[in-house]
Amino acid sequence: MELRGVIRTDREMSDGRTIRYYDSKVTERNAVDKRPKEEQPGIGELRFDPLVNEWIAISAHRQNRIFLPPKELCPLCPTTSDELLTEIPETDYEVVVFDNKSPSLRPPLGDNALPDYAGPETDEGKAIGKCEVIVFNSDHGQSFCDLSETQVRTLLEAWRDRTYELSKEPFIRHIAPFENRGEEIGVTLHHPHGQIYAYSYLPPRVEKMLAAAKRYKHEFGRVLFDEIVKREIADKVRIVCQNEHWIAYVPYAARYPYEIHVAPIAPVADLTELTSEQCDSYPKIALEVMKRLDGVYGVPMAYIAAWHQAPVREGRDLLRLHWQITSVRRAPGKLKYLAGSESAMGAFIMDVTPEQSAAQLREVKL
Amino acid sequence: MELRGVIRTDREMSDGRTIRYYDSKVTERNAVDKRPKEEQPGIGELRFDPLVNEWIAISAHRQNRIFLPPKELCPLCPTTSDELLTEIPETDYEVVVFDNKSPSLRPPLGDNALPDYAGPETDEGKAIGKCEVIVFNSDHGQSFCDLSETQVRTLLEAWRDRTYELSKEPFIRHIAPFENRGEEIGVTLHHPHGQIYAYSYLPPRVEKMLAAAKRYKHEFGRVLFDEIVKREIADKVRIVCQNEHWIAYVPYAARYPYEIHVAPIAPVADLTELTSEQCDSYPKIALEVMKRLDGVYGVPMAYIAAWHQAPVREGRDLLRLHWQITSVRRAPGKLKYLAGSESAMGAFIMDVTPEQSAAQLREVKL
Repeated sequence: MELRGVIRTDREMSDGRTIRYYDSKVTERNAVDKRPKEEQPGIGELRFDPLVNEWIAISAHRQNRIFLPPKELCPLCPTTSDELLTEIPETDYEVVVFDNKSPSLRPPLGDNALPDYAGPETDEGKAIGKCEVIVFNSDHGQSFCDLSETQVRTLLEAWRDRTYELSKEPFIRHIAPFENRGEEIGVTLHHPHGQIYAYSYLPPRVEKMLAAAKRYKHEFGRVLFDEIVKREIADKVRIVCQNEHWIAYVPYAARYPYEIHVAPIAPVADLTELTSEQCDSYPKIALEVMKRLDGVYGVPMAYIAAWHQAPVREGRDLLRLHWQITSVRRAPGKLKYLAGSESAMGAFIMDVTPEQSAAQLREVKL
Repeated sequence: MELRGVIRTDREMSDGRTIRYYDSKVTERNAVDKRPKEEQPGIGELRFDPLVNEWIAISAHRQNRIFLPPKELCPLCPTTSDELLTEIPETDYEVVVFDNKSPSLRPPLGDNALPDYAGPETDEGKAIGKCEVIVFNSDHGQSFCDLSETQVRTLLEAWRDRTYELSKEPFIRHIAPFENRGEEIGVTLHHPHGQIYAYSYLPPRVEKMLAAAKRYKHEFGRVLFDEIVKREIADKVRIVCQNEHWIAYVPYAARYPYEIHVAPIAPVADLTELTSEQCDSYPKIALEVMKRLDGVYGVPMAYIAAWHQAPVREGRDLLRLHWQITSVRRAPGKLKYLAGSESAMGAFIMDVTPEQSAAQLREVKL
């Protein structure tokens, strides 16, 4: 995949991890990571939960990771003096992706394939995969919604490139770039950033989406997600905003008070398949959606924004790219918690109708 | 099902709902609900999420329910003066179950069956089912772990009776009694109480457990849950405590820093099938588990405690009763949040090993 309008420069960090600079213009990236060499943590375990046939990653080495540091100790800020050597040696940057220092999932050291069938007798596997950190902007005080369209475009190109490159790894089955925002959902670093999780197994929700799409294709001969988007376009009432290439809607059966799906109107399997036109019109709708979210209560909204893509090597013609944003705020000062019904039974109860939620988002004055 | 050592008295509330008193000794329950008659809220919707084939209940009428009232306005306290008429007209009580005032799920008014097959074209169904509130104790300041063994025994009998009675309703497919404790997980009333959700559909986690159990039975001819308990007994390292009839363990692939499953050693499908001996030895282990949880950090632990039972009319020989307690606390002052990987992808990452967690629980001095 050729990068569109963005240059990537790779550098090695002092402990051997890779840092990648994505720049919209030619920039020298020669700063050296001056921190002492540190040993990388070991690989965690994957354990099979036979009750529901799902893999659980156990990464007990992450318990001591940095927790809400003050601004002046932020490890995602540029390195501006020898006093504080951050994860990013350069004094400024646009978008940066580096290997996570305390990853839940790591590349394999040898042959570590998971067993084909697992049950209550299964021993653990290795927590194989890859976890990367993607920093949206060098400015600590900003959020995704403060980025310029050019910055979002560079960010999208970085997500696309990571998907392309990680897809080539034989041990990766699924790639999920996501952003967590807000202390209410446990964000430990305020600097605008996201994560990229590349799994060696299908995450349970993806597995379920794939099963639903297969069943639908089998019964009706059509691609489920395309029909869903058609319904949202026809129903109109849950559309939040749209442009020539993208549509943003609150899904018919939303699970969260504010849940928005943003999908390209011409469907693609993953980020790498987006056309130039689709890429160029993403920043506008992405920024509008985020500004509408913050506008509902006039305060920054805590959210999880995750890219759903087709898995790397299966279901490529069945699953479609979309960006899912979910927020747990249900009223000023009130959060939606996952309690007994949602957490123990998996049965979601929504407190607002998706139509009310979409109307509120549409009515925000930008 | 005959109640064991407990007497039940039913009374009608002013708005037509039923309140049931469960008493360990003969007690007159004649107090009248003096509140003005109020109209009951309408029925919500069930919407089918075709992306993953799950039903979502939409109950927009619940948004204004009471939120952390001060002790003197608690609607679950007994009614001790005409100044504050609570949900419970009696001046004292043992265990009480009443129909939820703002239920997410309600009994049907006519023929409201869900469609057999649902997809992106499916219209909504009615949010059929039943939601009940179960109050553990008349003392506002207590918690489950403060109850006496006799009180827990009465509570268990109430859970059993509700399961038995709700199972007879043709519109109920699954019954889940659960307790949410702690503001950190969104509890809106501090008075010790739980809820009973009776669903007209299989909750997604139950559906998944049933599929896993079916597959295991098909491949190995055995009941999955029984094999899981056998493994926990053989592995020993994750056992928290046990007695003659029950075992409490941190499951091999736990999802939460503190997750405990409490299961009868001789398996049963649901609460109604427990023998007298199993019932009588539950209070001791239940109280021990809860005290160990609170003992880990010396502060009340926020948790969700849910009874998993076989569904009412299917998988009766495949799924087994167990009590699942999950806590989101991962260290003093730190909670485990469900962020991108867990929430968007369904892929859980655990920060401690289940063996560490079980050892911590075992080491608590009672």
